[in-house]
Amino acid sequence: MTARPASALGAGPPLPGRRRTPLLSLALDRGSATALQQQLYDQLREVILAGGLAPGSRLPSSRALAAELGCSRNTVVTAFDQLLSEGYLEGQAGSGTFVSRVLPEDLLGLAPARPGQKEGKAARETTDPKTLLSARGQALTALRRRRHGPERAFLPGIPETMEFPFDIWTRLHSRLWRHPSASLLRLGTPAGLQTLREAIARYLATFRGMTCDWRQVIVTTGAQQALDMMIQLLLEPGDRVWIEEPGYPGIRGPLIAAAADPVPLPLDGEGLMVSQGRRRAPSARAAIVTPTHHYPLGTTMSLARRLELLEWAREAGAWILEDDYDSEYRYAGRPLASLWSLAAGREEAARVIYVGSFSKVLFPSIRIGYLVVPESLIDAASAAQSALGTQPTAVLQPVLAAFIEEGHFATHVRRMRRLYAARQAALVAAAERHLAGLLEVPADDAGLHLMAWLAPELAARLDDRAVTETAAEAGVAISPLSDYFMGKPDRQGLLLGYAAVPEDEIEIGARRLGEALRASR
Amino acid sequence: MTARPASALGAGPPLPGRRRTPLLSLALDRGSATALQQQLYDQLREVILAGGLAPGSRLPSSRALAAELGCSRNTVVTAFDQLLSEGYLEGQAGSGTFVSRVLPEDLLGLAPARPGQKEGKAARETTDPKTLLSARGQALTALRRRRHGPERAFLPGIPETMEFPFDIWTRLHSRLWRHPSASLLRLGTPAGLQTLREAIARYLATFRGMTCDWRQVIVTTGAQQALDMMIQLLLEPGDRVWIEEPGYPGIRGPLIAAAADPVPLPLDGEGLMVSQGRRRAPSARAAIVTPTHHYPLGTTMSLARRLELLEWAREAGAWILEDDYDSEYRYAGRPLASLWSLAAGREEAARVIYVGSFSKVLFPSIRIGYLVVPESLIDAASAAQSALGTQPTAVLQPVLAAFIEEGHFATHVRRMRRLYAARQAALVAAAERHLAGLLEVPADDAGLHLMAWLAPELAARLDDRAVTETAAEAGVAISPLSDYFMGKPDRQGLLLGYAAVPEDEIEIGARRLGEALRASR
Repeated sequence: MTARPASALGAGPPLPGRRRTPLLSLALDRGSATALQQQLYDQLREVILAGGLAPGSRLPSSRALAAELGCSRNTVVTAFDQLLSEGYLEGQAGSGTFVSRVLPEDLLGLAPARPGQKEGKAARETTDPKTLLSARGQALTALRRRRHGPERAFLPGIPETMEFPFDIWTRLHSRLWRHPSASLLRLGTPAGLQTLREAIARYLATFRGMTCDWRQVIVTTGAQQALDMMIQLLLEPGDRVWIEEPGYPGIRGPLIAAAADPVPLPLDGEGLMVSQGRRRAPSARAAIVTPTHHYPLGTTMSLARRLELLEWAREAGAWILEDDYDSEYRYAGRPLASLWSLAAGREEAARVIYVGSFSKVLFPSIRIGYLVVPESLIDAASAAQSALGTQPTAVLQPVLAAFIEEGHFATHVRRMRRLYAARQAALVAAAERHLAGLLEVPADDAGLHLMAWLAPELAARLDDRAVTETAAEAGVAISPLSDYFMGKPDRQGLLLGYAAVPEDEIEIGARRLGEALRASR
Repeated sequence: MTARPASALGAGPPLPGRRRTPLLSLALDRGSATALQQQLYDQLREVILAGGLAPGSRLPSSRALAAELGCSRNTVVTAFDQLLSEGYLEGQAGSGTFVSRVLPEDLLGLAPARPGQKEGKAARETTDPKTLLSARGQALTALRRRRHGPERAFLPGIPETMEFPFDIWTRLHSRLWRHPSASLLRLGTPAGLQTLREAIARYLATFRGMTCDWRQVIVTTGAQQALDMMIQLLLEPGDRVWIEEPGYPGIRGPLIAAAADPVPLPLDGEGLMVSQGRRRAPSARAAIVTPTHHYPLGTTMSLARRLELLEWAREAGAWILEDDYDSEYRYAGRPLASLWSLAAGREEAARVIYVGSFSKVLFPSIRIGYLVVPESLIDAASAAQSALGTQPTAVLQPVLAAFIEEGHFATHVRRMRRLYAARQAALVAAAERHLAGLLEVPADDAGLHLMAWLAPELAARLDDRAVTETAAEAGVAISPLSDYFMGKPDRQGLLLGYAAVPEDEIEIGARRLGEALRASR
């Protein structure tokens, strides 16, 4: 009464010294967290499915089986009832119970998996991703990014999360959710909660000089999902799309999902080279750009280039997806007006879609972003969120709306702006002390990371991926610029994130990085 | 000094009695919420872009303009600085400021939108969804569902949200988020927070008899997004997919997005007719089914049919997506083992994907669901959530994990089960009193709604959509079964949701519905 028979029963040769009477192999484990009737049910089902009890064969009475198993009759009756209701057994408990005859014999051939089978063809078919996934699925999974790691110096793309005012956040959450209105609990409009859309519209008007109706704001699960949804809506499979090279790796997934055809375009000091795009893909259907502060180079697209881009979009009837992912973090000067603002009131306004995110301003795991769409796309964007089930949770939306409306958002941004400016200055200074002759680390007016350029002496012996590996061995996390290219990188560089790194760790990280790079000679 | 010049400047003929000297049309509005320097900046920019100031033309000194506008010189200097930094102006404020010459003349032709233009071709092109959206986008937006409305009797698909223990929920939220660990704030694994995945795995083991490793649980933004992501991963464009007819309308969007080819299959009393599928699309790549409790008919798929479906999946190398959307709400008997459990330990286990949702058990706007995937798909599902940016917020995940682990979830389900059972009984009784001869409303062992069948007398004069309209005019919200068919409906019926309707409103709703239908004669 100690062996667990389960799936071994009826498969393989009989064990020596053990009778092939399936019900005698039933065993209840009183130490298990699983209820006895559940155990009995599971085991009987296994025996039946494994063919250990033929269709039509009679089971012992519940009384007899209970005595044999040393359990209460009720346990057996409950398990039988369940098997009867599911069609494994026939008859009435008490007046004779039989294995169901209506189970077609050929369906009972579902063989339990055997260890040896793992190497067979069937097993390979169901474990090899190449066979399992669609071509699209394979391309999507190949994008896996190597960005997870501890938040030490100098992993890019991470804000300082420990400074976020969670006391205020939880207070707002409690206020809004202890007695929520019924309207908060319903699915609501897929475009997002009205109060949050209004708060975002007002925020954009105040801080970004953008004039839009709150209805044009669509709440999303971050900037990437926003791009994914718009690309699905707007592009046909095979449509060409201008993207920045290097650029934000997060757009590759949405482009794959939509079967769009990316056209990576280089940048010069004024931003995306529109002239190259006009030459290589004049009739592309969309351009995805980060004009405020290019990701990851930090270039600001010049006004002339912006106008050139808008002009092309008008001529080509193309869409511009403006990803304004970090406009909050500018430390010198004011940001240029967004493309969205530049187009406002003009024909091009119907062509520009603005994408924003709270992941960098609040904390990455919050996963809330938004779109500002032309009026002509409001209904479509809302319908697409509903049709794809990508509408984000409503639980955070009133909390974030109150956080913005009551001024906590602006306060937090101002505090972080000062903190990040100081950290960037600390990184520049530490780089001068510890990385001179190895890396050039020019200051930037904005952002959460600095670009570091390999000095000729270093570039002569290591590429940026090798530098990254050397750094990782010394406990310093950086990202190679090469990872941000879809094609062959035309330059080598490193991203040094500083926003989440306290100044003393910046100093230590820079010193360690310098030591490691000098030692790698 | 009162006219707002803005975008009208430089377009169209000069207004009579108004000099075409653009700067004289500048006007600052002290009553506006917009700062004076921002107003000045906006207006100057508009004038330049509209061609009101030619490239190279000199601007008045900041002192002179300030005097003219009656504002401080600082206001003008700030606006000039911004325009200088953005490239609209050249030179140094103070020593002469000019409109930038590097703005190519041809780019300045961006004409401001004029009222008359709205009727022109360009305007039409950018407002007609047919022209704007991709074919996929048009199909997605055409799916708009007509399900939004007040939660009165008898809108289906809505749980009782007012009974949710928000006091417990907000307490857990405060406990976990007042001083969150750094790991909660990072983006984390795209498959979801480990504690929640563990809690779901344990919950499924206890309540659903499913044995899975927590790593096989992938947290999603609801069941629909879960289906969308898996379909993207697994299906090629054009792949055929068995779906239930009638069935869950939420799968249509994901199928459109993936360009899959749905094969709607009828149901009989044992569930999806696998034999029909084998005849019409034997080599389909997937089947999407609700075997526990068919949506919306309520049919439970028989064991024989389940085995037949698994057998087909094995032969065809097809996927089974098992949508177990409401397994918590069963009022009589125990649910059948899931397809996932039935396949466990067998070759078919690698073919079955289980989909669950918290929207019906907690509240619809929470938007959390999950997948249980075969081991071979864990990495792919996680990578796809990352690649598409669909990973849901982490804020709710530890709260939900604690809610489940501390027993509040089970308590809530038990309470709601009693409440819904009583409401269903009330609906059946009210239907006997008020709807006899019009609708047959048989009881169901599970679910949040009952199917109502049109009695011959009613069916002879109205179809289910007409009944729905008649009901709506009388203030009773129901859903016609026809809406759940992709093709031509083969039967007429109504969905009467009862879960969110108190018993007294059930009585009133049934009476009103009866009166309205009798009056419609």
